[in-house]
Amino acid sequence: MSDVAVPPAPTPLYELRRYDDADALADAAAARIAELLQGALSARGRAVAALSGGATPQRAYAKLSRAKIDWPRVSVTLVDDLWAPASDPRSNKNLLDLTLFYDGGASGARFAPLYTGGASVEAGCAAAEAALRPLARPFDLVVLGMGPDGHVASFFPGGDRLSEALDPDGRALLTPMRAPGLPGTRISLTLAAILQARRILLLFSGRTKARTFQRALGPGPVEDMPIRAILRQRRAPVEVLCADIDGADVTPQPIAAAWKAVETARDRLAGRRIVDLFDTDPERFERLSARAEDMLLDLSKTGLDAGALEALLNLARAAGVETLRDAMFEGRPINATEGRPVLHAALRARPGDVFAAEGVDVMPEVLETRARALDFAEAVRSGAYAAADGGRFTDVVNIGIGGSDLGPVMAVRALAPVHDGPRCHFISNVDGAHAQDVLRTLDPARTLVLIASKTFTTIETMTNADTAMRWMKAGVGEAAGGHFAAISTALDKVEAFGIDPARAFGFWDWVGGRYSVWSSIGLSLMIAIGRADFEAFLDGGRAMDAHFRTAPLDKNLPVLLAAAGVWHRNALGLGSRAVIPYDQRLERLPAYLQQLDMESNGKTARLRDGLPGETGPVVWGEPGTNGQHAFFQLLHQGTTVIPVEFLVAATGWEPELAHHHSLLLANCFAQSEALMAGRSEQEAHDMMIAEGMEAAEARRLAPHRAFSGDRPSTMLIYRKLDPYTLGRLVALYEHRVFSEGVIWGVNAYDQWGVELGKTLAKALEPMVTGEASAAEKDGSTIGLIGWMKALQSG
Amino acid sequence: MSDVAVPPAPTPLYELRRYDDADALADAAAARIAELLQGALSARGRAVAALSGGATPQRAYAKLSRAKIDWPRVSVTLVDDLWAPASDPRSNKNLLDLTLFYDGGASGARFAPLYTGGASVEAGCAAAEAALRPLARPFDLVVLGMGPDGHVASFFPGGDRLSEALDPDGRALLTPMRAPGLPGTRISLTLAAILQARRILLLFSGRTKARTFQRALGPGPVEDMPIRAILRQRRAPVEVLCADIDGADVTPQPIAAAWKAVETARDRLAGRRIVDLFDTDPERFERLSARAEDMLLDLSKTGLDAGALEALLNLARAAGVETLRDAMFEGRPINATEGRPVLHAALRARPGDVFAAEGVDVMPEVLETRARALDFAEAVRSGAYAAADGGRFTDVVNIGIGGSDLGPVMAVRALAPVHDGPRCHFISNVDGAHAQDVLRTLDPARTLVLIASKTFTTIETMTNADTAMRWMKAGVGEAAGGHFAAISTALDKVEAFGIDPARAFGFWDWVGGRYSVWSSIGLSLMIAIGRADFEAFLDGGRAMDAHFRTAPLDKNLPVLLAAAGVWHRNALGLGSRAVIPYDQRLERLPAYLQQLDMESNGKTARLRDGLPGETGPVVWGEPGTNGQHAFFQLLHQGTTVIPVEFLVAATGWEPELAHHHSLLLANCFAQSEALMAGRSEQEAHDMMIAEGMEAAEARRLAPHRAFSGDRPSTMLIYRKLDPYTLGRLVALYEHRVFSEGVIWGVNAYDQWGVELGKTLAKALEPMVTGEASAAEKDGSTIGLIGWMKALQSG
Repeated sequence: MSDVAVPPAPTPLYELRRYDDADALADAAAARIAELLQGALSARGRAVAALSGGATPQRAYAKLSRAKIDWPRVSVTLVDDLWAPASDPRSNKNLLDLTLFYDGGASGARFAPLYTGGASVEAGCAAAEAALRPLARPFDLVVLGMGPDGHVASFFPGGDRLSEALDPDGRALLTPMRAPGLPGTRISLTLAAILQARRILLLFSGRTKARTFQRALGPGPVEDMPIRAILRQRRAPVEVLCADIDGADVTPQPIAAAWKAVETARDRLAGRRIVDLFDTDPERFERLSARAEDMLLDLSKTGLDAGALEALLNLARAAGVETLRDAMFEGRPINATEGRPVLHAALRARPGDVFAAEGVDVMPEVLETRARALDFAEAVRSGAYAAADGGRFTDVVNIGIGGSDLGPVMAVRALAPVHDGPRCHFISNVDGAHAQDVLRTLDPARTLVLIASKTFTTIETMTNADTAMRWMKAGVGEAAGGHFAAISTALDKVEAFGIDPARAFGFWDWVGGRYSVWSSIGLSLMIAIGRADFEAFLDGGRAMDAHFRTAPLDKNLPVLLAAAGVWHRNALGLGSRAVIPYDQRLERLPAYLQQLDMESNGKTARLRDGLPGETGPVVWGEPGTNGQHAFFQLLHQGTTVIPVEFLVAATGWEPELAHHHSLLLANCFAQSEALMAGRSEQEAHDMMIAEGMEAAEARRLAPHRAFSGDRPSTMLIYRKLDPYTLGRLVALYEHRVFSEGVIWGVNAYDQWGVELGKTLAKALEPMVTGEASAAEKDGSTIGLIGWMKALQSG
Repeated sequence: MSDVAVPPAPTPLYELRRYDDADALADAAAARIAELLQGALSARGRAVAALSGGATPQRAYAKLSRAKIDWPRVSVTLVDDLWAPASDPRSNKNLLDLTLFYDGGASGARFAPLYTGGASVEAGCAAAEAALRPLARPFDLVVLGMGPDGHVASFFPGGDRLSEALDPDGRALLTPMRAPGLPGTRISLTLAAILQARRILLLFSGRTKARTFQRALGPGPVEDMPIRAILRQRRAPVEVLCADIDGADVTPQPIAAAWKAVETARDRLAGRRIVDLFDTDPERFERLSARAEDMLLDLSKTGLDAGALEALLNLARAAGVETLRDAMFEGRPINATEGRPVLHAALRARPGDVFAAEGVDVMPEVLETRARALDFAEAVRSGAYAAADGGRFTDVVNIGIGGSDLGPVMAVRALAPVHDGPRCHFISNVDGAHAQDVLRTLDPARTLVLIASKTFTTIETMTNADTAMRWMKAGVGEAAGGHFAAISTALDKVEAFGIDPARAFGFWDWVGGRYSVWSSIGLSLMIAIGRADFEAFLDGGRAMDAHFRTAPLDKNLPVLLAAAGVWHRNALGLGSRAVIPYDQRLERLPAYLQQLDMESNGKTARLRDGLPGETGPVVWGEPGTNGQHAFFQLLHQGTTVIPVEFLVAATGWEPELAHHHSLLLANCFAQSEALMAGRSEQEAHDMMIAEGMEAAEARRLAPHRAFSGDRPSTMLIYRKLDPYTLGRLVALYEHRVFSEGVIWGVNAYDQWGVELGKTLAKALEPMVTGEASAAEKDGSTIGLIGWMKALQSG
């Protein structure tokens, strides 16, 4: 990779939320503060907030005062205050008394004052700090306002202790502060204390403040506008809530600026053919590829050059990929629409690794559940857990849908060479054909059925589960329940269904379905490949986590893949990406990635400011070489450019079929070469003439046999598709999807888009069965149901 | 459907080819004439051409005179001539003597003159007609020039017998002609005679002629510009070859005009929501849906209205969908880059149906081969054709790739309920994993292997065939050959491989791989389901052929689906389409359609003038309801609109699982409803408030739970997925792809885009195995091969 220069000053970083007016802002801020306090209470049993004064925050406090929170477990202090008693109308404590604590508000909350009434501010400061220190490690949230001069807390430009106060590594929590023009002396949390916060909320409203904020985003010393110290730091996540800014552009300038640099690079490269970029830069392959262990990702067959890539990595930084990555691994609730942390990485952690969900250690439960599931899997494999007749289970049926299906399907198929347990089958579709075609081939006496549904209410899964239970009872009678296990946390429903809760394996709300193959959802995989190989699969994911967390962005495989993705999607405007594994055993990887990618980033609503415009593309593909004989025609000669992501292993599992594998590799490399190189009309013409064709015929056919070339692809090559490598692959794509989601500002972890269809299906079912009338529906639905009924009865 | 008005005058229709200068035009015209003559000779053993005079044609004749054609079997006559002997320098026979026949050119060709030297032109005309009549049924080609006044042949504006000559249904082949200002009397083929041609070539060059041609494309009587009689007819396909027109726009005006009408409709509908269109038009469902037997296609949940649809159907007409459809069924070589007819429809024909490839009846061979294949399939099923040990074959492995794989894979899976023959397995990928994972589960003693490769040289298929043969020999020894059959026409290679040619089943060069499931390529399907069900499958295809050939366009399912496709692709600029069968057994339909659609229409080069701009879109999909739990998030809330094509059966095959099927239908209808209806931010907000959420939280979440709606989908519903219906489905999509290809002007039947990758793979293989150096390759390929080797040896 290139020698990417680190920007001289860190770019400002924050999530931005705009509101129409100050009242809406106050509503939202009060709700957000309450949510953060509640989260802290749930996680740790107590909550600590440091609040600022100011006109904008105070409106939020008034609304907050009535929030239904267990206030006695909440401690409140101030970010800064006038060195004066609460009776002084200019003091911030006075402001709280008139808002948060007014008329018994926030009843029972403990308040830790900054003004302690000592002889001098210096002496009082020490006393206040002693009282504060037990509370301040860390604050759950700090609420800041902002002055028109760019001050926050009491960090006034020209303040006498400013540089000491702004030292991010200072030891003091509190500092006195005096500044020219300020009435009286003030006491303030230091920057070091503020940055210990789990979350910082910055509130402002009005055009004047918006202009201040814009200036603060520009270059210049922190001391001139101390708010910059908050925006440029990387320790505490910052949310900016603003209102009434009359269309002023407070988009995180770094995103806009970083994007502008990407566009400039694109324009600079316009008209340059990929193949020519190799001439310009003989080190291109080295510069545009990166490795993690044996895994190499090559971006040199895209239209990127080192400068464009650098611009994209700066965009990733500006959008907060690093900050949010760290927040994710730290268990902060980055899935903000559902108020949950995102901790699938914990599922592949080893004993000793640290993962906490909003402060609560999750590892004991993770390890305990994993051990139970693996023990059960081994028992099934060994026959220690046996069928009703005492015989061994030869077949396992996993009933689940979406994330409870695609991961296991994909991974069981991928790891066929180490599959030495019972055969695995999968039923997902509510279409009766699916259950029928799977079950009719099986002997219930030899079959174990896994029901994967967290709530045990997923309609498809429970409909299929009921059918499977009827089939099992017909086969083995009252012993049927023993041929079932559940992947669920709804133990009562599991038991009511007829499964001993001892065979129920749970997971957690901080793991999304499409990220859950690492959890109990992987039970079928565990049974197929056994403990050691499953643990190798987990270790692969864990290795990719470490790489993602620590590798510099220009060597960071998930971030590089995301950079290529954003380049193709946003800079070049390409609507889909093809994922083509040159590996028949990865035949379901494209379907798996369709869910992982499109369900994560197929969003329009933004959680925070990100790159405007298009978000997640369509993802599709089939294995090579098969695709070559199907749709590659369009990849080469279609009117639309489709970036292709190739994957291939250097060696196969069958040494006796090495000649097959050589052909596979040759074809994989050849396709990426052909996409890039193309063949001009003149070359096609000359080729045909050389083959002895008549000139007129050659002229006629040349356009049909020409290839525009210059079509981008990436290549991922690794030693062998073993469990460890599959784990790395899946985690690589997880983090790629995450990184793109951050750049686009969407929440990659919710899926509200599946809601409406579910709701409507529920309403439609009685109309389909004839129990309700469809008369209120649209004309098409009425017509279709009518025709359906005619066909059913005809 | 709406009452679509038939346009008052047929729109001009022709394929257009432009050349840079008159010399290039002469080259191309000579080559094209030679090609057409050669095609006729191959098909029928003789060829008949009628040639015009004029400066542009004569240059082509001079070049044609040396073409290597079996001239003695070619008859040449004139389109028209001066009533004067060949010695008259103004006569067209004189012109031929100086060009085509000059210096022994076209040696041996028979010439039938128009000037027969009788007492009067009227008397001579009768004699000439008697001589001509045996030749003229029909002409293989007619070459026309065009005068600056828009005359062709001797159809001069103001001519004395003009209206008689222009009667397309007149009985005379020849007519005398006199016109004001013309020196002498002329004799000419009538329009009725000319339109009997298999092909008309019209040649012109220069700006003056281009302006004449442009005027002819406009409205106005045929008598004013008789060339219009050629351009507006639908009997004989017309190719216009022109040169030196200095950028004059001679694009078929009807396509441009028809497209303009589509754009106007789009602009008129802009901003109208689909859901509101139902309010405007209570008959919308009836107007925008159509049926063929039980199969109903609903377009009413797209943004089309009756006017927009009418405009699209006019576009289809203008582009020649009807003409080329008829040409396809008549066996004309519409696959013009390969010079082949396109006759997969013949593969599903019944005895008595008429199909000829360029005049040669194909039905005897089709029926004979079908009977042999079905007999063999039945013998395998019954055990009459047995394994080496005399036992029955329990398993069949089909080894093929692309069209030799996807069709059988898709259809065998789709027809599981009637699959009562041996189990079927498929090996396609050259990846050794594929052969390994299939073969290791099978007993060679019970397994029949089918090798599907027309030429028996497809690298993937033959590599897998060799591996299968080694496996079989290891299992059954010298009897291995008896466990193989071939789908191939290369009988020598089949035999050399060790298969008795009696078990080789061929097909023809007029069937493309992706259209071949109906042929011997369907052998695995025949063995799976048996004769009666396979014939029902063929009958389904045949029924859809009849529908496509005869239904008016506004009731024609393939054309309607094409109209929706072009609307979404070209009018709305959408880059992909999702095909979502609510049928688990159609799980490979999307992959099948990827080949059918993307390999057919993923083209940039045009065969003839069509709609400019984008051609075939990306096609992808998975079955519902599974997709709902995977990528539907993006369909509902992504930034890009993806038109969805739903398919669903009114009834399933499992009466005892009817409740599954009701859920399936309810979900299918619900998804199309949800895509259309959406949910506004306000509705989302009010819903959450009604559920008791705090106002601020509801406000925060509303954008995430809102759905833009107004996303188009089509619905295809049919009684039940039986063999007959599957046949109709596949043929429906074949003809849809064809119709779109015609509108775009591409050749849907070649696949030159797969060539380059094959060539490069061949060159790369020795570099991958280390037998050759990669040093001359691009830096990426060098780097990747280097890393691959490091991994292989490390």
